[in-house]
Amino acid sequence: MEPPPAPEGRSVIERTFDVLGAFDSANVSLSASEISRRTGIPVATTYRIVSKLLDWGALERIGMNKFTIGLRLWEVASLAPRHAALRGAAISPMLDLHAKTHSVVMISVRDRREGVWLESVSGSGGVCHRTWSTGNRFPLHATSCGLVLLDQAPATVREDVYAAALPAYTDRTVTDPDVLRNLVDETRRRGYALCEGQLAEEVAGVSAPVLDENGVGIGALGLVTDSPAAITPRHIALTLETSRRITRALTLRSRETEPAPATVSRGGRGRGVTRPDCA
Amino acid sequence: MEPPPAPEGRSVIERTFDVLGAFDSANVSLSASEISRRTGIPVATTYRIVSKLLDWGALERIGMNKFTIGLRLWEVASLAPRHAALRGAAISPMLDLHAKTHSVVMISVRDRREGVWLESVSGSGGVCHRTWSTGNRFPLHATSCGLVLLDQAPATVREDVYAAALPAYTDRTVTDPDVLRNLVDETRRRGYALCEGQLAEEVAGVSAPVLDENGVGIGALGLVTDSPAAITPRHIALTLETSRRITRALTLRSRETEPAPATVSRGGRGRGVTRPDCA
Repeated sequence: MEPPPAPEGRSVIERTFDVLGAFDSANVSLSASEISRRTGIPVATTYRIVSKLLDWGALERIGMNKFTIGLRLWEVASLAPRHAALRGAAISPMLDLHAKTHSVVMISVRDRREGVWLESVSGSGGVCHRTWSTGNRFPLHATSCGLVLLDQAPATVREDVYAAALPAYTDRTVTDPDVLRNLVDETRRRGYALCEGQLAEEVAGVSAPVLDENGVGIGALGLVTDSPAAITPRHIALTLETSRRITRALTLRSRETEPAPATVSRGGRGRGVTRPDCA
Repeated sequence: MEPPPAPEGRSVIERTFDVLGAFDSANVSLSASEISRRTGIPVATTYRIVSKLLDWGALERIGMNKFTIGLRLWEVASLAPRHAALRGAAISPMLDLHAKTHSVVMISVRDRREGVWLESVSGSGGVCHRTWSTGNRFPLHATSCGLVLLDQAPATVREDVYAAALPAYTDRTVTDPDVLRNLVDETRRRGYALCEGQLAEEVAGVSAPVLDENGVGIGALGLVTDSPAAITPRHIALTLETSRRITRALTLRSRETEPAPATVSRGGRGRGVTRPDCA
């Protein structure tokens, strides 16, 4: 991401979202002066914006002078359609895949030229669990999920990625666009992607596409192992089976004609309590 | 919720959040003129605000002239700490409880004088699944989750609820504050709450408290059945067992000393890809 322009040139709305954007997974609570430092917005202005955000519920106060993202922002944001159906259909199959393999399992989508993890299932140990907690975006060219998402992307996005600098994370990261192009073609041909040590030395992953009810690729299911760093044929078979199960659940949901397997819904925000609901 | 004041008296930040608040689970995509109609903000101003929200990623465009909540807002909002740990610890046990009972299972927290569903697990049929999709807030006085959350609330909040009007949703809704007070006391004594037909005629629920690592109540696990509308001793035992399992998972997570059972993490937003992550 590019650094934001100097704050004095930014509108009130831009500054407001700069304040929200100051929070990340390493900083889930911040004081007003910390927000000011992270955004470059003067402290007095920061306080004014924070106060408005508190009123609405986009921020909440914890302790004397710390703030966190608020439940009401989460309620509105949970309406984001790009993830709601996918993660709802994916969680139960992901938990099953984790139970069978003890590997980390995640579901991802593409956002512009990056991947975004929507959800992951893991034990509490392991390198993956720890590194994930620092952020949820990942480079498309150095991950198995990324190869699947590149295959699903419009050709113009794919060419943009090939044309951009491809940073090396390890000695094995693919930085040559022609090699990357071949990997994406191979992913399409065989229906899944493999990466070994391309983002982190001792980590290997396999990913398979998830399709919507029209057969259009909308995300990638990934399985990651770091002990030992090897993907087995069983990993591949189970990942493919699970991605097909998620695709089927999405199709069933969209038809809504017959009972689907257990699905998980996050509360989408309503407009207050307007009608009888369940106990 | 009270209606917002006339829009002309509202600040830019307030109008911006009015625009975001125009979306709800019955309206996940809106045109600018629909947003204008729902918020009372003039169309030209609505367009200006929408344009800023698109730039930042709080909204996304779909089709020619429709907008939805964007993935980036979801990334920031997923940092909301009041739900992140709870729902991460809860999902796997909730899926198990659903598999054992075929009932709807949900996890909830209190926000001021209302309850908020964080997550629910259900089949695709059934009255509960359908009514939930219209909103995720619920009244504390007419639900089993609400009784548990009232028991957990500070005394001042509890007294506020007792003192306010208690709307009747069915003939069986408790609208007498003294009866409600007794129900909350009974919930505390026996460690779970029951509701039968108090929010909807043919729906019954049982709820049990979830505690944080310090033994403080932070949420309620609920199980709801509508066919037949009866909670059995087995429902109660399994709900209590599952809520204790979620409490244990939260405690294990907070200690982070030993491998926990499978947990689900949503991608918390990071600041771009700043370090090696998993494949």
